[in-house]
Amino acid sequence: MVVKVYGPHCASTKRVLVCLVEKEIEFEVVPINFLEGEQKNPEYLKLQPFGTVPVIQDGDYALYESRAIMRYYAEKYRSQGIELLGKTIEEKGLVEQWLEVEAQNFNPSAYNLALHVLFPSLLADNTPNPKVIEESEAKLVKVLNIYEERLSKSKYLAGDFFSLADISHLPFTDYIVNQMGKEYLIKDKKHVSDWWDDISSRPSWKKVTKLYRPPI
Amino acid sequence: MVVKVYGPHCASTKRVLVCLVEKEIEFEVVPINFLEGEQKNPEYLKLQPFGTVPVIQDGDYALYESRAIMRYYAEKYRSQGIELLGKTIEEKGLVEQWLEVEAQNFNPSAYNLALHVLFPSLLADNTPNPKVIEESEAKLVKVLNIYEERLSKSKYLAGDFFSLADISHLPFTDYIVNQMGKEYLIKDKKHVSDWWDDISSRPSWKKVTKLYRPPI
Repeated sequence: MVVKVYGPHCASTKRVLVCLVEKEIEFEVVPINFLEGEQKNPEYLKLQPFGTVPVIQDGDYALYESRAIMRYYAEKYRSQGIELLGKTIEEKGLVEQWLEVEAQNFNPSAYNLALHVLFPSLLADNTPNPKVIEESEAKLVKVLNIYEERLSKSKYLAGDFFSLADISHLPFTDYIVNQMGKEYLIKDKKHVSDWWDDISSRPSWKKVTKLYRPPI
Repeated sequence: MVVKVYGPHCASTKRVLVCLVEKEIEFEVVPINFLEGEQKNPEYLKLQPFGTVPVIQDGDYALYESRAIMRYYAEKYRSQGIELLGKTIEEKGLVEQWLEVEAQNFNPSAYNLALHVLFPSLLADNTPNPKVIEESEAKLVKVLNIYEERLSKSKYLAGDFFSLADISHLPFTDYIVNQMGKEYLIKDKKHVSDWWDDISSRPSWKKVTKLYRPPI
Protein backbone atom coordinates (compact mmCIF):
# COMPACT_ATOMS: atom_id res chain seq x y z
CA MET A 1 0.00 0.00 0.00
CA VAL A 2 1.45 3.38 -1.05
CA VAL A 3 1.10 6.12 1.58
CA LYS A 4 -0.89 9.11 0.34
CA VAL A 5 0.40 12.45 1.72
CA TYR A 6 -1.72 15.62 1.49
CA GLY A 7 -0.15 19.06 1.10
CA PRO A 8 3.45 18.26 0.03
CA HIS A 9 4.43 21.89 -0.65
CA CYS A 10 3.78 23.08 2.92
CA ALA A 11 6.48 23.22 5.57
CA SER A 12 4.87 20.89 8.14
CA THR A 13 4.27 18.22 5.51
CA LYS A 14 7.96 18.22 4.60
CA ARG A 15 8.74 16.78 8.04
CA VAL A 16 6.66 13.74 7.08
CA LEU A 17 8.13 13.46 3.58
CA VAL A 18 11.73 13.50 4.84
CA CYS A 19 10.82 10.84 7.39
CA LEU A 20 9.26 8.64 4.67
CA VAL A 21 12.32 9.04 2.43
CA GLU A 22 14.70 8.20 5.30
CA LYS A 23 12.58 5.13 6.15
CA GLU A 24 12.46 4.08 2.47
CA ILE A 25 8.64 4.10 2.44
CA GLU A 26 6.87 4.58 -0.88
CA PHE A 27 4.43 7.50 -1.07
CA GLU A 28 2.37 9.59 -3.44
CA VAL A 29 1.29 13.18 -2.87
CA VAL A 30 -2.03 15.03 -3.10
CA PRO A 31 -1.53 18.80 -3.60
CA ILE A 32 -3.53 21.14 -1.33
CA ASN A 33 -3.41 24.78 -2.39
CA PHE A 34 -3.06 26.46 0.97
CA LEU A 35 -2.87 29.99 -0.43
CA GLU A 36 -6.28 29.42 -2.07
CA GLY A 37 -7.76 27.89 1.09
CA GLU A 38 -8.30 24.35 -0.18
CA GLN A 39 -7.60 23.10 3.34
CA LYS A 40 -10.99 24.53 4.37
CA ASN A 41 -12.99 22.56 1.76
CA PRO A 42 -15.70 20.36 3.39
CA GLU A 43 -14.28 17.17 1.85
CA TYR A 44 -10.83 17.93 3.19
CA LEU A 45 -12.19 18.85 6.64
CA LYS A 46 -13.57 15.32 6.93
CA LEU A 47 -9.94 14.14 6.86
CA GLN A 48 -8.45 16.97 8.92
CA PRO A 49 -11.12 18.83 10.95
CA PHE A 50 -8.72 21.61 12.01
CA GLY A 51 -8.13 22.56 8.36
CA THR A 52 -4.36 22.18 8.30
CA VAL A 53 -1.81 19.94 6.59
CA PRO A 54 -0.49 17.28 6.52
CA VAL A 55 -2.77 14.25 6.55
CA ILE A 56 -1.76 10.77 5.46
CA GLN A 57 -3.95 7.96 4.21
CA ASP A 58 -2.52 4.46 4.35
CA GLY A 59 -5.20 2.02 3.24
CA ASP A 60 -8.08 2.52 5.68
CA TYR A 61 -5.89 4.31 8.19
CA ALA A 62 -5.68 8.11 8.29
CA LEU A 63 -3.56 10.27 10.56
CA TYR A 64 -2.82 13.97 10.92
CA GLU A 65 -0.31 16.16 12.79
CA SER A 66 3.16 15.99 11.24
CA ARG A 67 5.05 14.91 14.37
CA ALA A 68 2.50 12.17 15.14
CA ILE A 69 2.80 10.83 11.58
CA MET A 70 6.61 10.82 11.80
CA ARG A 71 6.49 8.89 15.09
CA TYR A 72 4.04 6.37 13.61
CA TYR A 73 6.23 5.52 10.61
CA ALA A 74 9.53 5.69 12.51
CA GLU A 75 8.14 3.06 14.89
CA LYS A 76 6.19 0.93 12.42
CA TYR A 77 9.24 0.52 10.17
CA ARG A 78 11.83 0.65 12.92
CA SER A 79 14.25 -1.76 11.24
CA GLN A 80 13.84 -0.32 7.72
CA GLY A 81 15.95 2.62 6.49
CA ILE A 82 17.63 4.85 9.07
CA GLU A 83 16.78 4.42 12.77
CA LEU A 84 15.19 7.75 13.75
CA LEU A 85 14.16 7.10 17.37
CA GLY A 86 17.52 6.24 18.96
CA LYS A 87 18.60 2.76 19.95
CA THR A 88 17.54 2.61 23.61
CA ILE A 89 14.45 3.77 25.45
CA GLU A 90 16.59 6.46 27.12
CA GLU A 91 17.77 7.75 23.73
CA LYS A 92 14.16 7.70 22.55
CA GLY A 93 13.21 9.79 25.60
CA LEU A 94 15.70 12.43 24.48
CA VAL A 95 14.36 12.32 20.92
CA GLU A 96 10.90 13.00 22.38
CA GLN A 97 12.28 15.80 24.58
CA TRP A 98 13.87 17.61 21.64
CA LEU A 99 10.83 17.03 19.43
CA GLU A 100 8.82 18.79 22.14
CA VAL A 101 11.40 21.59 22.39
CA GLU A 102 11.04 22.08 18.63
CA ALA A 103 7.25 22.12 18.86
CA GLN A 104 6.99 24.29 21.98
CA ASN A 105 10.02 26.61 21.83
CA PHE A 106 11.46 26.75 18.32
CA ASN A 107 8.43 26.41 16.07
CA PRO A 108 6.05 29.06 17.48
CA SER A 109 8.61 31.84 16.83
CA ALA A 110 9.85 30.39 13.52
CA TYR A 111 6.24 29.98 12.37
CA ASN A 112 5.33 33.56 13.27
CA LEU A 113 8.42 34.83 11.46
CA ALA A 114 7.51 32.83 8.34
CA LEU A 115 3.92 34.04 8.49
CA HIS A 116 4.76 37.73 8.82
CA VAL A 117 7.86 37.83 6.61
CA LEU A 118 6.96 35.35 3.86
CA PHE A 119 3.19 34.80 3.90
CA PRO A 120 1.45 37.99 5.08
CA SER A 121 -1.44 37.21 2.69
CA LEU A 122 -2.43 34.48 5.16
CA LEU A 123 -2.87 37.06 7.96
CA ALA A 124 -6.38 38.38 8.71
CA ASP A 125 -5.39 41.93 7.68
CA ASN A 126 -2.78 40.92 5.04
CA THR A 127 -0.26 43.15 6.83
CA PRO A 128 2.97 41.98 8.47
CA ASN A 129 3.40 43.26 12.04
CA PRO A 130 6.96 44.54 12.68
CA LYS A 131 6.50 44.06 16.45
CA VAL A 132 5.66 40.36 15.99
CA ILE A 133 8.69 39.97 13.70
CA GLU A 134 10.99 41.66 16.21
CA GLU A 135 9.67 39.71 19.21
CA SER A 136 9.72 36.37 17.37
CA GLU A 137 13.30 36.92 16.28
CA ALA A 138 14.35 37.84 19.83
CA LYS A 139 12.70 34.68 21.23
CA LEU A 140 14.34 32.57 18.54
CA VAL A 141 17.78 33.94 19.41
CA LYS A 142 17.28 32.86 23.04
CA VAL A 143 16.16 29.39 21.97
CA LEU A 144 19.09 29.04 19.56
CA ASN A 145 21.55 30.07 22.29
CA ILE A 146 20.40 26.98 24.19
CA TYR A 147 20.75 24.88 21.02
CA GLU A 148 24.32 26.20 20.59
CA GLU A 149 25.20 24.98 24.08
CA ARG A 150 23.54 21.61 23.47
CA LEU A 151 25.16 21.13 20.05
CA SER A 152 28.60 21.92 21.50
CA LYS A 153 28.20 18.65 23.44
CA SER A 154 26.47 16.33 20.96
CA LYS A 155 26.45 16.17 17.17
CA TYR A 156 22.65 16.15 16.93
CA LEU A 157 19.94 17.39 19.26
CA ALA A 158 19.06 14.11 20.97
CA GLY A 159 22.65 12.82 21.05
CA ASP A 160 25.29 11.65 18.60
CA PHE A 161 22.66 10.21 16.27
CA PHE A 162 20.35 11.79 13.67
CA SER A 163 16.68 11.56 14.69
CA LEU A 164 13.13 12.83 14.24
CA ALA A 165 14.08 15.78 16.47
CA ASP A 166 16.50 17.02 13.80
CA ILE A 167 14.12 16.31 10.91
CA SER A 168 11.40 18.33 12.60
CA HIS A 169 13.55 21.49 12.38
CA LEU A 170 14.32 21.26 8.66
CA PRO A 171 11.39 23.07 7.00
CA PHE A 172 11.25 26.21 9.13
CA THR A 173 15.04 26.52 9.46
CA ASP A 174 15.14 26.37 5.65
CA TYR A 175 12.69 29.31 5.55
CA ILE A 176 14.94 31.23 7.95
CA VAL A 177 18.20 30.50 6.09
CA ASN A 178 17.11 30.41 2.46
CA GLN A 179 13.90 32.44 2.13
CA MET A 180 13.80 35.17 4.77
CA GLY A 181 17.31 36.59 4.50
CA LYS A 182 17.80 35.83 8.19
CA GLU A 183 20.52 33.20 7.76
CA TYR A 184 22.62 35.06 10.38
CA LEU A 185 20.31 33.58 13.05
CA ILE A 186 21.83 30.18 12.24
CA LYS A 187 25.22 31.04 10.72
CA ASP A 188 26.37 33.24 13.62
CA LYS A 189 26.39 30.22 15.94
CA LYS A 190 29.19 27.77 15.17
CA HIS A 191 27.59 24.56 16.39
CA VAL A 192 24.09 25.40 15.22
CA SER A 193 25.55 26.31 11.82
CA ASP A 194 27.53 23.05 11.57
CA TRP A 195 24.42 21.08 12.58
CA TRP A 196 22.32 22.87 9.98
CA ASP A 197 24.92 22.23 7.25
CA ASP A 198 24.91 18.56 8.21
CA ILE A 199 21.18 17.91 8.36
CA SER A 200 20.27 20.08 5.37
CA SER A 201 22.80 18.29 3.16
CA ARG A 202 21.15 14.90 3.66
CA PRO A 203 19.86 13.41 0.39
CA SER A 204 16.36 13.06 1.92
CA TRP A 205 16.03 16.81 2.50
CA LYS A 206 17.56 17.67 -0.88
CA LYS A 207 15.09 15.35 -2.59
CA VAL A 208 12.05 16.76 -0.78
CA THR A 209 12.96 20.42 -1.35
CA LYS A 210 13.72 19.76 -5.00
CA LEU A 211 10.43 17.95 -5.60
CA TYR A 212 8.16 20.22 -3.55
CA ARG A 213 9.07 23.89 -3.61
CA PRO A 214 7.48 26.12 -0.94
CA PRO A 215 4.28 27.94 -2.03
CA ILE A 216 5.92 31.35 -2.59
CA MET B 1 15.18 4.05 42.03
CA VAL B 2 12.50 6.60 42.97
CA VAL B 3 11.72 9.15 40.25
CA LYS B 4 12.33 12.74 41.35
CA VAL B 5 9.81 15.22 39.86
CA TYR B 6 10.48 18.97 39.95
CA GLY B 7 7.65 21.50 40.22
CA PRO B 8 4.65 19.36 41.35
CA HIS B 9 2.30 22.30 41.89
CA CYS B 10 2.45 23.52 38.27
CA ALA B 11 -0.06 22.45 35.65
CA SER B 12 2.37 20.87 33.16
CA THR B 13 3.96 18.78 35.88
CA LYS B 14 0.58 17.32 36.83
CA ARG B 15 0.48 15.55 33.44
CA VAL B 16 3.61 13.65 34.51
CA LEU B 17 2.36 12.95 38.03
CA VAL B 18 -0.95 11.48 36.80
CA CYS B 19 0.97 9.30 34.34
CA LEU B 20 3.27 8.04 37.12
CA VAL B 21 0.29 7.25 39.38
CA GLU B 22 -1.53 5.42 36.55
CA LYS B 23 1.65 3.43 35.82
CA GLU B 24 2.18 2.67 39.53
CA ILE B 25 5.66 4.21 39.53
CA GLU B 26 7.05 5.51 42.81
CA PHE B 27 8.10 9.16 42.86
CA GLU B 28 9.12 12.00 45.13
CA VAL B 29 8.68 15.71 44.42
CA VAL B 30 10.96 18.74 44.55
CA PRO B 31 8.98 21.99 44.91
CA ILE B 32 9.88 24.85 42.55
CA ASN B 33 8.30 28.17 43.46
CA PHE B 34 7.32 29.45 40.03
CA LEU B 35 5.69 32.64 41.29
CA GLU B 36 9.02 33.56 42.93
CA GLY B 37 11.03 32.65 39.83
CA GLU B 38 12.96 29.68 41.24
CA GLN B 39 12.85 28.11 37.77
CA LYS B 40 15.38 30.75 36.66
CA ASN B 41 17.98 29.86 39.32
CA PRO B 42 21.35 28.88 37.76
CA GLU B 43 21.34 25.45 39.44
CA TYR B 44 17.89 24.69 38.08
CA LEU B 45 18.79 25.96 34.59
CA LYS B 46 21.48 23.27 34.43
CA LEU B 47 18.65 20.74 34.59
CA GLN B 48 16.14 22.65 32.42
CA PRO B 49 17.85 25.34 30.31
CA PHE B 50 14.54 26.86 29.15
CA GLY B 51 13.59 27.63 32.77
CA THR B 52 10.28 25.77 32.87
CA VAL B 53 8.86 22.76 34.68
CA PRO B 54 8.72 19.79 34.86
CA VAL B 55 12.03 17.95 34.93
CA ILE B 56 12.50 14.41 36.17
CA GLN B 57 15.63 12.76 37.51
CA ASP B 58 15.73 8.98 37.52
CA GLY B 59 19.14 7.87 38.70
CA ASP B 60 21.61 9.38 36.23
CA TYR B 61 18.91 10.05 33.65
CA ALA B 62 17.18 13.44 33.42
CA LEU B 63 14.39 14.47 31.08
CA TYR B 64 12.23 17.54 30.57
CA GLU B 65 9.06 18.47 28.63
CA SER B 66 5.94 16.96 30.22
CA ARG B 67 4.67 15.09 27.16
CA ALA B 68 8.11 13.58 26.47
CA ILE B 69 8.36 12.38 30.08
CA MET B 70 4.88 10.82 29.90
CA ARG B 71 5.80 8.98 26.69
CA TYR B 72 9.03 7.72 28.25
CA TYR B 73 7.34 6.18 31.28
CA ALA B 74 4.28 4.91 29.41
CA GLU B 75 6.63 2.99 27.12
CA LYS B 76 9.25 1.94 29.66
CA TYR B 77 6.61 0.41 31.94
CA ARG B 78 4.22 -0.62 29.21
CA SER B 79 2.96 -3.75 31.01
CA GLN B 80 2.73 -2.13 34.46
CA GLY B 81 -0.41 -0.25 35.61
CA ILE B 82 -2.82 1.03 32.96
CA GLU B 83 -1.83 0.83 29.26
CA LEU B 84 -1.71 4.48 28.15
CA LEU B 85 -0.48 4.16 24.54
CA GLY B 86 -3.19 1.97 22.99
CA LYS B 87 -2.78 -1.71 22.17
CA THR B 88 -1.71 -1.55 18.52
CA ILE B 89 0.66 0.68 16.59
CA GLU B 90 -2.36 2.22 14.86
CA GLU B 91 -3.99 3.06 18.20
CA LYS B 92 -0.68 4.51 19.34
CA GLY B 93 -0.63 6.67 16.20
CA LEU B 94 -3.99 8.14 17.24
CA VAL B 95 -2.74 8.72 20.80
CA GLU B 96 0.15 10.67 19.26
CA GLN B 97 -2.22 12.59 16.98
CA TRP B 98 -4.43 13.73 19.88
CA LEU B 99 -1.42 14.50 22.07
CA GLU B 100 -0.28 16.82 19.28
CA VAL B 101 -3.77 18.32 18.94
CA GLU B 102 -3.67 19.06 22.67
CA ALA B 103 -0.21 20.63 22.41
CA GLN B 104 -0.83 22.59 19.20
CA ASN B 105 -4.54 23.49 19.30
CA PHE B 106 -5.95 23.18 22.82
CA ASN B 107 -3.05 24.17 25.05
CA PRO B 108 -1.95 27.50 23.52
CA SER B 109 -5.41 29.04 24.09
CA ALA B 110 -5.99 27.34 27.45
CA TYR B 111 -2.53 28.47 28.58
CA ASN B 112 -3.15 32.09 27.54
CA LEU B 113 -6.50 32.07 29.34
CA ALA B 114 -4.88 30.72 32.51
CA LEU B 115 -2.09 33.27 32.31
CA HIS B 116 -4.34 36.30 31.83
CA VAL B 117 -7.25 35.21 34.07
CA LEU B 118 -5.43 33.41 36.90
CA PHE B 119 -1.77 34.43 36.86
CA PRO B 120 -1.46 38.02 35.55
CA SER B 121 1.47 38.55 37.93
CA LEU B 122 3.51 36.37 35.55
CA LEU B 123 2.89 38.81 32.67
CA ALA B 124 5.55 41.40 31.85
CA ASP B 125 3.20 44.28 32.74
CA ASN B 126 1.20 42.40 35.43
CA THR B 127 -1.98 43.35 33.60
CA PRO B 128 -4.45 40.92 32.01
CA ASN B 129 -5.31 41.77 28.41
CA PRO B 130 -9.09 41.49 27.74
CA LYS B 131 -8.44 41.08 23.99
CA VAL B 132 -6.18 38.06 24.57
CA ILE B 133 -8.80 36.55 26.90
CA GLU B 134 -11.58 37.07 24.35
CA GLU B 135 -9.55 35.70 21.41
CA SER B 136 -8.25 32.72 23.38
CA GLU B 137 -11.77 31.80 24.48
CA ALA B 138 -13.08 32.09 20.90
CA LYS B 139 -10.27 29.82 19.62
CA LEU B 140 -10.93 27.33 22.40
CA VAL B 141 -14.63 27.15 21.50
CA LYS B 142 -13.72 26.24 17.91
CA VAL B 143 -11.29 23.55 19.10
CA LEU B 144 -13.84 22.13 21.55
CA ASN B 145 -16.48 21.98 18.80
CA ILE B 146 -14.18 19.54 17.02
CA TYR B 147 -13.67 17.62 20.26
CA GLU B 148 -17.47 17.39 20.67
CA GLU B 149 -17.76 15.78 17.23
CA ARG B 150 -14.88 13.41 17.97
CA LEU B 151 -16.20 12.43 21.41
CA SER B 152 -19.65 11.70 19.95
CA LYS B 153 -17.95 8.80 18.15
CA SER B 154 -15.45 7.49 20.70
CA LYS B 155 -15.40 7.49 24.49
CA TYR B 156 -11.92 9.02 24.71
CA LEU B 157 -9.92 11.16 22.30
CA ALA B 158 -7.77 8.47 20.70
CA GLY B 159 -10.55 5.83 20.70
CA ASP B 160 -12.50 3.78 23.24
CA PHE B 161 -9.52 3.61 25.59
CA PHE B 162 -8.07 6.08 28.11
CA SER B 163 -4.62 7.33 27.06
CA LEU B 164 -1.87 9.94 27.43
CA ALA B 165 -3.92 12.16 25.11
CA ASP B 166 -6.66 12.43 27.75
CA ILE B 167 -4.22 12.86 30.64
CA SER B 168 -2.54 15.73 28.84
CA HIS B 169 -5.79 17.76 28.96
CA LEU B 170 -6.41 17.39 32.69
CA PRO B 171 -4.49 20.29 34.28
CA PHE B 172 -5.62 23.12 32.01
CA THR B 173 -9.21 21.87 31.71
CA ASP B 174 -9.27 21.83 35.52
CA TYR B 175 -8.21 25.50 35.50
CA ILE B 176 -11.03 26.27 33.04
CA VAL B 177 -13.73 24.36 34.95
CA ASN B 178 -12.72 24.86 38.58
CA GLN B 179 -10.60 28.01 38.80
CA MET B 180 -11.61 30.45 36.05
CA GLY B 181 -15.40 30.36 36.31
CA LYS B 182 -15.50 29.30 32.65
CA GLU B 183 -16.95 25.82 33.21
CA TYR B 184 -19.59 26.58 30.52
CA LEU B 185 -16.85 26.05 27.89
CA ILE B 186 -16.87 22.36 28.86
CA LYS B 187 -20.33 21.83 30.37
CA ASP B 188 -22.25 23.26 27.40
CA LYS B 189 -21.04 20.40 25.19
CA LYS B 190 -22.61 17.07 26.07
CA HIS B 191 -19.85 14.73 24.96
CA VAL B 192 -16.98 16.95 26.07
CA SER B 193 -18.71 17.33 29.44
CA ASP B 194 -19.21 13.56 29.86
CA TRP B 195 -15.57 12.98 28.88
CA TRP B 196 -14.39 15.56 31.39
CA ASP B 197 -16.52 14.04 34.17
CA ASP B 198 -15.04 10.64 33.35
CA ILE B 199 -11.34 11.55 33.18
CA SER B 200 -11.41 14.02 36.09
CA SER B 201 -13.02 11.44 38.38
CA ARG B 202 -10.15 8.99 38.00
CA PRO B 203 -8.38 8.28 41.31
CA SER B 204 -5.04 9.32 39.76
CA TRP B 205 -6.25 12.85 39.04
CA LYS B 206 -8.01 13.16 42.40
CA LYS B 207 -4.84 12.09 44.17
CA VAL B 208 -2.61 14.54 42.27
CA THR B 209 -4.94 17.55 42.72
CA LYS B 210 -5.38 16.77 46.40
CA LEU B 211 -1.65 16.47 47.04
CA TYR B 212 -0.46 19.38 44.88
CA ARG B 213 -2.78 22.36 44.80
CA PRO B 214 -2.21 24.95 42.05
CA PRO B 215 -0.04 27.93 43.06
CA ILE B 216 -2.93 30.39 43.50
